[in-house]
Amino acid sequence: MMISIDLNSDLGESFGTWQIGMDEAIMPLVSSVNIATGWHAGDPMIMAKTVKAAGLQKLGIGAHPGFPDLMGFGRRNMAVTPEEAKAYVMYQVGALNAFVRAEGLTLQHVKPHGALYNMAAKDLKLALAIAEAVALIDSDLILMGLESSQMEVAAKTLGIPFASEVFADRRYQEDGNLVPRSQLGAVIESEEEALKQVLQMVLKGQAVTDTGKVIALKADSLCVHGDNPHALKFIEAIRAALGKEGALIKALRPFESAGE
Amino acid sequence: MMISIDLNSDLGESFGTWQIGMDEAIMPLVSSVNIATGWHAGDPMIMAKTVKAAGLQKLGIGAHPGFPDLMGFGRRNMAVTPEEAKAYVMYQVGALNAFVRAEGLTLQHVKPHGALYNMAAKDLKLALAIAEAVALIDSDLILMGLESSQMEVAAKTLGIPFASEVFADRRYQEDGNLVPRSQLGAVIESEEEALKQVLQMVLKGQAVTDTGKVIALKADSLCVHGDNPHALKFIEAIRAALGKEGALIKALRPFESAGE
Amino acid sequence: MMISIDLNSDLGESFGTWQIGMDEAIMPLVSSVNIATGWHAGDPMIMAKTVKAAGLQKLGIGAHPGFPDLMGFGRRNMAVTPEEAKAYVMYQVGALNAFVRAEGLTLQHVKPHGALYNMAAKDLKLALAIAEAVALIDSDLILMGLESSQMEVAAKTLGIPFASEVFADRRYQEDGNLVPRSQLGAVIESEEEALKQVLQMVLKGQAVTDTGKVIALKADSLCVHGDNPHALKFIEAIRAALGKEGALIKALRPFESAGE
Amino acid sequence: MMISIDLNSDLGESFGTWQIGMDEAIMPLVSSVNIATGWHAGDPMIMAKTVKAAGLQKLGIGAHPGFPDLMGFGRRNMAVTPEEAKAYVMYQVGALNAFVRAEGLTLQHVKPHGALYNMAAKDLKLALAIAEAVALIDSDLILMGLESSQMEVAAKTLGIPFASEVFADRRYQEDGNLVPRSQLGAVIESEEEALKQVLQMVLKGQAVTDTGKVIALKADSLCVHGDNPHALKFIEAIRAALGKEGALIKALRPFESAGE
Repeated sequence: MMISIDLNSDLGESFGTWQIGMDEAIMPLVSSVNIATGWHAGDPMIMAKTVKAAGLQKLGIGAHPGFPDLMGFGRRNMAVTPEEAKAYVMYQVGALNAFVRAEGLTLQHVKPHGALYNMAAKDLKLALAIAEAVALIDSDLILMGLESSQMEVAAKTLGIPFASEVFADRRYQEDGNLVPRSQLGAVIESEEEALKQVLQMVLKGQAVTDTGKVIALKADSLCVHGDNPHALKFIEAIRAALGKEGALIKALRPFESAGE
Repeated sequence: MMISIDLNSDLGESFGTWQIGMDEAIMPLVSSVNIATGWHAGDPMIMAKTVKAAGLQKLGIGAHPGFPDLMGFGRRNMAVTPEEAKAYVMYQVGALNAFVRAEGLTLQHVKPHGALYNMAAKDLKLALAIAEAVALIDSDLILMGLESSQMEVAAKTLGIPFASEVFADRRYQEDGNLVPRSQLGAVIESEEEALKQVLQMVLKGQAVTDTGKVIALKADSLCVHGDNPHALKFIEAIRAALGKEGALIKALRPFESAGE
Repeated sequence: MMISIDLNSDLGESFGTWQIGMDEAIMPLVSSVNIATGWHAGDPMIMAKTVKAAGLQKLGIGAHPGFPDLMGFGRRNMAVTPEEAKAYVMYQVGALNAFVRAEGLTLQHVKPHGALYNMAAKDLKLALAIAEAVALIDSDLILMGLESSQMEVAAKTLGIPFASEVFADRRYQEDGNLVPRSQLGAVIESEEEALKQVLQMVLKGQAVTDTGKVIALKADSLCVHGDNPHALKFIEAIRAALGKEGALIKALRPFESAGE
Repeated sequence: MMISIDLNSDLGESFGTWQIGMDEAIMPLVSSVNIATGWHAGDPMIMAKTVKAAGLQKLGIGAHPGFPDLMGFGRRNMAVTPEEAKAYVMYQVGALNAFVRAEGLTLQHVKPHGALYNMAAKDLKLALAIAEAVALIDSDLILMGLESSQMEVAAKTLGIPFASEVFADRRYQEDGNLVPRSQLGAVIESEEEALKQVLQMVLKGQAVTDTGKVIALKADSLCVHGDNPHALKFIEAIRAALGKEGALIKALRPFESAGE
């Protein structure tokens, strides 16, 4: 069996007149995209355009719902109830899905954005609410979330597919959680070291923790960023390193299109 | 063949803490509902609740998309492009459809709201953009719009089903358009006269214009309002009058539920 | 010296088409009002109308800024930074002040709303940020906040006037804080008991805690609600009880108007 | 008497995470700035930062209020009533003014943005509503608007100062209005020709119309854009050309600061 990994990136995060990201440059470098759904970023015009472009590139398409906080880019914790989170995810995923289906495509996954992602990683009730929304939309739809988190527990509880997301440049704790950004050593500054972590995660399903211990880690999808030319170069380095080891980069699901 | 008419009403127009309308009281009196989709009114919690209630009452469920103008309740003209209108309708109808499908139900129709409805009635490009969105979501989905308007032309042009909407208390012009609200005699003040117009439209497919002429008129759905106890009484009077004449009140499509 | 107390109430909380509260009925019963500033409730048309009405009634006018969360009515905690909170308060108070000054009136106080109020009561950094905004707008402007809270500390730290707010129907803890709503006995259900607490706070500057102990309490302003006819009756009962004891109900500052 | 002209530019048009414009680069090149007030662009954090920077540069500070249309950047016509426009302008100018006064500065002018500017140039009722808001905030405040437009009529009617704005690269009609963008020849493509028009407007108070006729034109402030490096170079060319002719570039009012 071939070893493979999905590379995912957040796209369609412009809003109205405001541009952000290098969507066109990053699409050929990843296998899946998480498209913003209008609440923390993205608007219907941008969603339509981004879905179309992702379909043309035959990428796995994911919805990227967030908090109703445009001014804070969905990065600020909000004390929503689980019922609210469920309804907010259904609304946003439903909206994106209209554009996906209009292109004859199938939605691959749902990855919560920013503060919603981080809160749900730790709060089972919130994670279950999000998973319920995903299951109600389509029980085949993949929930993507932080590896070894409450989101994984929620997906398993509801019996829906889960994609375990890992990070190249974040250091892990012994319990599999990320070292919080507030702590020293949370981010791996050296690209060489980050590449090494990627290879270890993808090829061996392991990571070295902040305490130096080796832990097991399931790596279904690797999150990459495309905000600047340097970030794009790093993705290319990841692709080259994985290729050298014979690991495939491919989406979570085979590409489906009504037109084919 | 039985003569029949659909009675539709705008519902789910509360927002957050703010309540509007008498949704529970009006549901048993109508056959179809147009549910606000979050841009001019409604929010995901209210959409979830309203869709569920409408499903329990076996009503025809429609999406009621509007302009991004919460402060103006979607009632103010906005100079959006046809491309924007198309994307906005797809977004909002997709969002509502997630709640409809989650209940095992099928969306029956799309009726644009307020200023979007009025502008599209007169502007073929805008009407075509809305009809394209509806067709892309589901080519069986019914577009509901003003009788004899550019919305009807758009639906026919794209080959999607159209439901012609009429009003009990608005007076018609010789060309089938409504007398503008800015003109004297736009609104039929007498309930007796309004009831008479309803019967004439439903039973004979005719209306008496502001000039006294009799014109032909297709009446698929009659719009009724449930803002106050008096309005509810008027709906009951309409139901009684139609019943006396043997006309059925029924939704545009037979009720479908995955659970049955 | 006469004993006196300010009665304040949250007003102008409608938004666009949506009505909430009984503003006209409550104005004659209170001495100060807190007017919503458009982020969690209120809009410019409502602000203009509410300020004008409050001025005609010669009430103390306060700004009632909240989180950017219309859908949640500003009642959900949001993880904003102190810098953001400061800028948000300046924006909203500045906006309301334009309407106040246009009527020839002087803004009396600023009372944060909902979750912003509750968070700032416990978080000194947040409270200081809000107090800084108030001081920058006008160092004579009164900050109104929970009695014995971090807001009081912040106001004293910056040397701006502080009005200590108390509640008729909430029970106090030994440290002067409110019993959290999540705990049993947080709310005083009996109106008789609530009236008794009001008199004790206003006349003696004391309250009986949930443990039965008597604590000292500074009561500058009593918060009252006018959401329903019953609430209005309770305010009348408070007014009658205070009047019987010879306590005056008056705003925090004498009424000032450029027109007089 | 020295001939002088104000150079103004729209600034602070970023929002949340999204950046737009080259504010830092353009500030040293202009004499006045129009700062977005949060409805079509800008947010309180950006407003605070932009006001502070403009004050340090001793620029004339203007408020730049727009329609409540973030998604459309305030560029889409909206059918607001004059009462709504008045309240919207008061709200936004009041909000910006809080930041201006907090820096010990004085607001110089108000220039409506985008569609609000264009609609008010032609619609006297709308222009009067905006002028009333400006007069209520401060009757010394300057209203800036299109030269020879209904905004000028409105300012004169209410007796408030008016600054007549002209454009380097737009061609004028015989009645002093701009050739509509929908018509051929609306924009002057040649920079040389645009520079010539600037000099003619500033030095002689004249412009050559699309029909070749010379008309009189009052030029109080010239609008310049700083969206890209090329635009900045053009401003430098304008400055050089004006300097060569001995024309001063200065704000509408002398700079005032409480700190000086």
